[in-house]
Amino acid sequence: MVSGKDETATFGRKLKMGMVGGGRDAFIGAVHRRAAMLDGAVELVAGAFSSTPEKSKLSARDFYVSEDRAYGTYQEMIEKERALPEGERIDFVSIVTPNHMHYPIAKAFVDAGFNVVLDKPMVHSSEQANSLIAAVEEQDAVFAVTYNYTAYPLVKQARQMVREGKLGEIRKVIVEYPQDWLRTKEEDTGQKQASWRTDPSRSGIAGSVGDIGSHAENLVSTITGLEIAEICADLTTFVPGRLLDDDANVLMHFTNGARGILSVSQVCTGQENNHKIRIWGTEGALEWIQEQPNYLTYWHAGDPVQVMARGHDYLCEAAKRATRLPTGHPEAFIEAFGNVYLNATDTIRAKIMGVEATELERDYPTVYDGARGVYFIEKVVESSKSNVKWLPFQWTPGK
Amino acid sequence: MVSGKDETATFGRKLKMGMVGGGRDAFIGAVHRRAAMLDGAVELVAGAFSSTPEKSKLSARDFYVSEDRAYGTYQEMIEKERALPEGERIDFVSIVTPNHMHYPIAKAFVDAGFNVVLDKPMVHSSEQANSLIAAVEEQDAVFAVTYNYTAYPLVKQARQMVREGKLGEIRKVIVEYPQDWLRTKEEDTGQKQASWRTDPSRSGIAGSVGDIGSHAENLVSTITGLEIAEICADLTTFVPGRLLDDDANVLMHFTNGARGILSVSQVCTGQENNHKIRIWGTEGALEWIQEQPNYLTYWHAGDPVQVMARGHDYLCEAAKRATRLPTGHPEAFIEAFGNVYLNATDTIRAKIMGVEATELERDYPTVYDGARGVYFIEKVVESSKSNVKWLPFQWTPGK
Amino acid sequence: MVSGKDETATFGRKLKMGMVGGGRDAFIGAVHRRAAMLDGAVELVAGAFSSTPEKSKLSARDFYVSEDRAYGTYQEMIEKERALPEGERIDFVSIVTPNHMHYPIAKAFVDAGFNVVLDKPMVHSSEQANSLIAAVEEQDAVFAVTYNYTAYPLVKQARQMVREGKLGEIRKVIVEYPQDWLRTKEEDTGQKQASWRTDPSRSGIAGSVGDIGSHAENLVSTITGLEIAEICADLTTFVPGRLLDDDANVLMHFTNGARGILSVSQVCTGQENNHKIRIWGTEGALEWIQEQPNYLTYWHAGDPVQVMARGHDYLCEAAKRATRLPTGHPEAFIEAFGNVYLNATDTIRAKIMGVEATELERDYPTVYDGARGVYFIEKVVESSKSNVKWLPFQWTPGK
Amino acid sequence: MVSGKDETATFGRKLKMGMVGGGRDAFIGAVHRRAAMLDGAVELVAGAFSSTPEKSKLSARDFYVSEDRAYGTYQEMIEKERALPEGERIDFVSIVTPNHMHYPIAKAFVDAGFNVVLDKPMVHSSEQANSLIAAVEEQDAVFAVTYNYTAYPLVKQARQMVREGKLGEIRKVIVEYPQDWLRTKEEDTGQKQASWRTDPSRSGIAGSVGDIGSHAENLVSTITGLEIAEICADLTTFVPGRLLDDDANVLMHFTNGARGILSVSQVCTGQENNHKIRIWGTEGALEWIQEQPNYLTYWHAGDPVQVMARGHDYLCEAAKRATRLPTGHPEAFIEAFGNVYLNATDTIRAKIMGVEATELERDYPTVYDGARGVYFIEKVVESSKSNVKWLPFQWTPGK
Repeated sequence: MVSGKDETATFGRKLKMGMVGGGRDAFIGAVHRRAAMLDGAVELVAGAFSSTPEKSKLSARDFYVSEDRAYGTYQEMIEKERALPEGERIDFVSIVTPNHMHYPIAKAFVDAGFNVVLDKPMVHSSEQANSLIAAVEEQDAVFAVTYNYTAYPLVKQARQMVREGKLGEIRKVIVEYPQDWLRTKEEDTGQKQASWRTDPSRSGIAGSVGDIGSHAENLVSTITGLEIAEICADLTTFVPGRLLDDDANVLMHFTNGARGILSVSQVCTGQENNHKIRIWGTEGALEWIQEQPNYLTYWHAGDPVQVMARGHDYLCEAAKRATRLPTGHPEAFIEAFGNVYLNATDTIRAKIMGVEATELERDYPTVYDGARGVYFIEKVVESSKSNVKWLPFQWTPGK
Repeated sequence: MVSGKDETATFGRKLKMGMVGGGRDAFIGAVHRRAAMLDGAVELVAGAFSSTPEKSKLSARDFYVSEDRAYGTYQEMIEKERALPEGERIDFVSIVTPNHMHYPIAKAFVDAGFNVVLDKPMVHSSEQANSLIAAVEEQDAVFAVTYNYTAYPLVKQARQMVREGKLGEIRKVIVEYPQDWLRTKEEDTGQKQASWRTDPSRSGIAGSVGDIGSHAENLVSTITGLEIAEICADLTTFVPGRLLDDDANVLMHFTNGARGILSVSQVCTGQENNHKIRIWGTEGALEWIQEQPNYLTYWHAGDPVQVMARGHDYLCEAAKRATRLPTGHPEAFIEAFGNVYLNATDTIRAKIMGVEATELERDYPTVYDGARGVYFIEKVVESSKSNVKWLPFQWTPGK
Repeated sequence: MVSGKDETATFGRKLKMGMVGGGRDAFIGAVHRRAAMLDGAVELVAGAFSSTPEKSKLSARDFYVSEDRAYGTYQEMIEKERALPEGERIDFVSIVTPNHMHYPIAKAFVDAGFNVVLDKPMVHSSEQANSLIAAVEEQDAVFAVTYNYTAYPLVKQARQMVREGKLGEIRKVIVEYPQDWLRTKEEDTGQKQASWRTDPSRSGIAGSVGDIGSHAENLVSTITGLEIAEICADLTTFVPGRLLDDDANVLMHFTNGARGILSVSQVCTGQENNHKIRIWGTEGALEWIQEQPNYLTYWHAGDPVQVMARGHDYLCEAAKRATRLPTGHPEAFIEAFGNVYLNATDTIRAKIMGVEATELERDYPTVYDGARGVYFIEKVVESSKSNVKWLPFQWTPGK
Repeated sequence: MVSGKDETATFGRKLKMGMVGGGRDAFIGAVHRRAAMLDGAVELVAGAFSSTPEKSKLSARDFYVSEDRAYGTYQEMIEKERALPEGERIDFVSIVTPNHMHYPIAKAFVDAGFNVVLDKPMVHSSEQANSLIAAVEEQDAVFAVTYNYTAYPLVKQARQMVREGKLGEIRKVIVEYPQDWLRTKEEDTGQKQASWRTDPSRSGIAGSVGDIGSHAENLVSTITGLEIAEICADLTTFVPGRLLDDDANVLMHFTNGARGILSVSQVCTGQENNHKIRIWGTEGALEWIQEQPNYLTYWHAGDPVQVMARGHDYLCEAAKRATRLPTGHPEAFIEAFGNVYLNATDTIRAKIMGVEATELERDYPTVYDGARGVYFIEKVVESSKSNVKWLPFQWTPGK
């Protein structure tokens, strides 16, 4: 279980976090703050929270950040923080702006030598992704992308079971992510999230595919380790006047011969955040459902169904480490998000202390996961426009 | 609730049923018999149960059918039964042979003036289907196809709610039917069902698509009333050496603009008979799961989820009629199958008595439903072989 | 699986069933008929279906029973059937009247040499129960009491697992049976079931305890094999003006030291027929829920939860025999009820043929189970009236 | 939703928290810290974390508390903190020691003018409870008892629905809390929690009843508002050699005539933390299950079952305020615990600012709730020892 003591205590101080974006009313910024500080070993000390210096200072006051470290722009933040001595300046920055700002801000922070936690989807294009990969590699930055769903302990357990061959050879994968929050033209009501997510200039080339399809891709890739060989995508915009897709159905062929379906939607009336994956192999199968995250269902051919639960001794080390409470005391979204931060910040701390982070600590989504997600979005959009059934999918990290 | 008395009592005798196929060891034959006789108003009096006269007689003894009406061939059965006086000869025949015999047998019985209950998929080709439609229309035969899943009371309720506009305009449909009984090469073990279902000469051009994909198509069409405009299919044979598909994923466009996914499989380890449909409309959504058939989940935008259950006053007439027990006393597969027989036999009885069957009585899958299913199978197979993404789907009854 | 062929075919004819009670509008009579005839090896040939000869004949017509075997009284039925030659006269009688008629009718049929299937609770008093035991023993009658819930295959599996020690020593049992059909004064509306069940002269000394508490006792006793040592009962009548209890909560001490709770109610708004048992032992635990009867949940200390399902190879022989369909093709209430009839009628057939019924065939609730249930009802009512906490429970068959 | 800004921002600084107990390895201490700091408006600045000054300082380092405020004893802590100026000294103390230290420590802090958050059960006896009530009233202290389960948003919704009459008159309540963590003699393994919880000198007169029975009582009282009139309790110690009860079954009569069952256990193999309540009224019913805390099931007579979920507009204000994330992004145990802190600390802040806390802010379990829980424990133990069935239950706050 997460203890919040060992190496963090040796480190002797809380890790210092900065934030870009995430001011008042921003949904995901508050999640990042709660997640980062969940284990009591991180403190928020600086930020460029909003688009104007005035708003940024108001947000800083909300978050008990001192006024002199509430910056008007991310450029100012980089400049001033860089000038502070180590131990006083931020140890890492969390970037939680709308998508279109991810690339310039992340690139600038990495280039300036900072470690970065970045929201998904990482950037707008594979070109940007590759540029970011190059920068991260050059700077040896700790760089995490908050694909939070793969940080749930039972997802880590699922990944482990696939690796151990508990499913045999995987034959079929169905990943779904239906929501309903954009079932009407929410973007016309002034709702901030809806507004930028449906705006190509800020959200990118995809709507639902970018926002939640990228999570679905990450869930499949993380658990199964399978590589997509070709895809056949069908994007739809159901709400009249909307500029980006709000529904996507994608058939997938994997390189091992497995078949897949990825189906995401933001117009499925009544669906809340029903991210779900089912994986069938020759010997076994798994199901995990985000809205019931503490459970993992496992079928082994011919045997009774098994329901595994968080907190038990039979789980793998990565799952155990990602847990804060005993069985039956449910953990949820914030705690999983916190697991990305836990591992990223433990890795940052190790880096600062000059020791090597363990494999368990380095278990967070990286710039490469982020890049694969961006390529996935590009290819799905491309396939959807094509009359040819199968579009090859050939992702190579950094290329 | 099904009472088993009113018009059946007026009729004054049990309806007489014959059977072709369904001898000892046949799975579906026993289901048909239990379903037909569930309400105590039908008796099995004749049959050509097996491929040889000897075996047919043995089966007849099992079923307490008198030896002189245990026929060696369906042709003999037609000839001899036809010679019996009405009231003594069979009132209808149930045909439960492997698929390849459906057409010749059904055609012969219809042409000879008999009413028919036929297992699905109806026949091997649209040509056969249209020929059968013509015969049924000419003879004015009562002709039912045992798409049993659409006979569950909660499926009838779902259909009614769609008709009443409780979902608004339908946007998305996902229908699934995963099983695992063919996950290994069961056909090599001598298992009778597996043997003929994976044999193109008996099963037809499709494996899983014919066996369970046809049920899935019927479920979508029955509940939603939507018409498919074009499809994009991906059939796979996972088990080496198998001659027909054992997995199918199909994207669908409906004529109203709705999107759909149909996914069926017989190699999904751990899945039993998990037929399931989800339908999302602009105002509401529905989910029904065959393994929990007494419940129907309904989402109305912004409201608590509603779970409807069999036996309640709030259900529609068709659902109420399809029920034999009070709430909480679960009904299941045989009872639903029995509902096809209940309505078909009430219609047959009405026909014999020269009265018009009510709309509720005529609520069973017809030769047209069967024909649409056959066309669906043909198109899915055709699309799967094509590199063009979308294959038009233009079904017209009888053409 | 139930095949409906082997010894029944050897027997050469359908078994002949008579019925007392169960005329038009009777709920449970229709269940008995469907259950008895589910496997095609039983036919209804005679009955005293109603309180008047005229009504009895009308019901006979509904059930296709010939008029000359529709009797006006059970006495007439005994006399006339007895006079028929074996093979023509009924092989057994099903008694489905209100409770107060159970004893005289069952006693008379047994004394006349007939086999009997009787609804529960068996009779009104332990005195009657013991008299019936004596008669059954003297006549060597096949005598079954339709505690249908213990005939579900997964209940048989639960019993087997307890016997095999999969739970270790049992420590705690909670059995519940909440319904809501008597939440208002239904008996004042003319509803037939409600009317007699709340009338002490017909229902006996208990209301909910007699109707469903007896099922709960049978479920506990059948699965666990534990013996009750003492009880502490709290009966309540919630609906003003009702003459019998409509709610009961009972604490139990078992002779092995285990603790138990039995809670039944007919006024629990929204509850349909939620009969449920949970059993915890030192090593494992089980849960079975009647409304989801095809599943059994098993916990073994420290392991993932296991969900067992009907139809699988891993189940015990008694469970397999009690099954008619493959996994995932759900079976339910009528099929379980049919299992009582299947085993009772197989035993009757064996008796007639002069062979010994197998242990699997003799697996139905007997006159002793019925007598224990009657004693349970008596003791619960006695305890509820007492201010002493614990009332000894010392049941000895026939005494 | 919890915003973490308005009045807290006006307050201008984080609220300062001290802690007694909760050092390294303490389970519940870490929960309190995470819960208190979840919304970013509280900081831990002082503590007497352990039984020795050395250990206390080690824990302080783990928690980034400065060494000079890591106290060796709670007395020292009171003395030194009191000497600090307001704004620097702690604003409240969280007491998370084993039960036997609750009273002296809480009493001392209250008497010294501090606000207190105290773990449950509050104290060892009604005498202590009443003494604490008097002190709290005299000092006008903000005093919260961490009955965390009643702080889940859906529990607040349940309470509101009862108040609004959505259930009609309540007739029956079943509250359960089965666990299995003490199913073997865990206290002999050196496990710290097990050790003190099964030790009468530290845990008090009850084992399972004190630890989790008190939660169950609080859940019933909070949601229903019913008052217990008399009880009939049956406590058992299943594990040989254990000194306190590890299982309890209690029948309850409420003053309005409703009946209840309370059943808790720490030896129910396979049960994790399955706290659950069901409430049936004349018009409606509710069910809430701690392990699925984001849902509340509501039955209204004759209507489809309704499943309410966290985050929706249809919930009451208290439920909305207790929520941090949108629907489908699950919240869980820590967040609910955080809700006790949120309301208690908002009330503390209001008190410091000299304004009146709102009713929504004052929605946390008080010293009176704590006292009722202590009385409940006493009466259950007393009843269990008695041979008289019903023991009167007459709790009056402070008497």
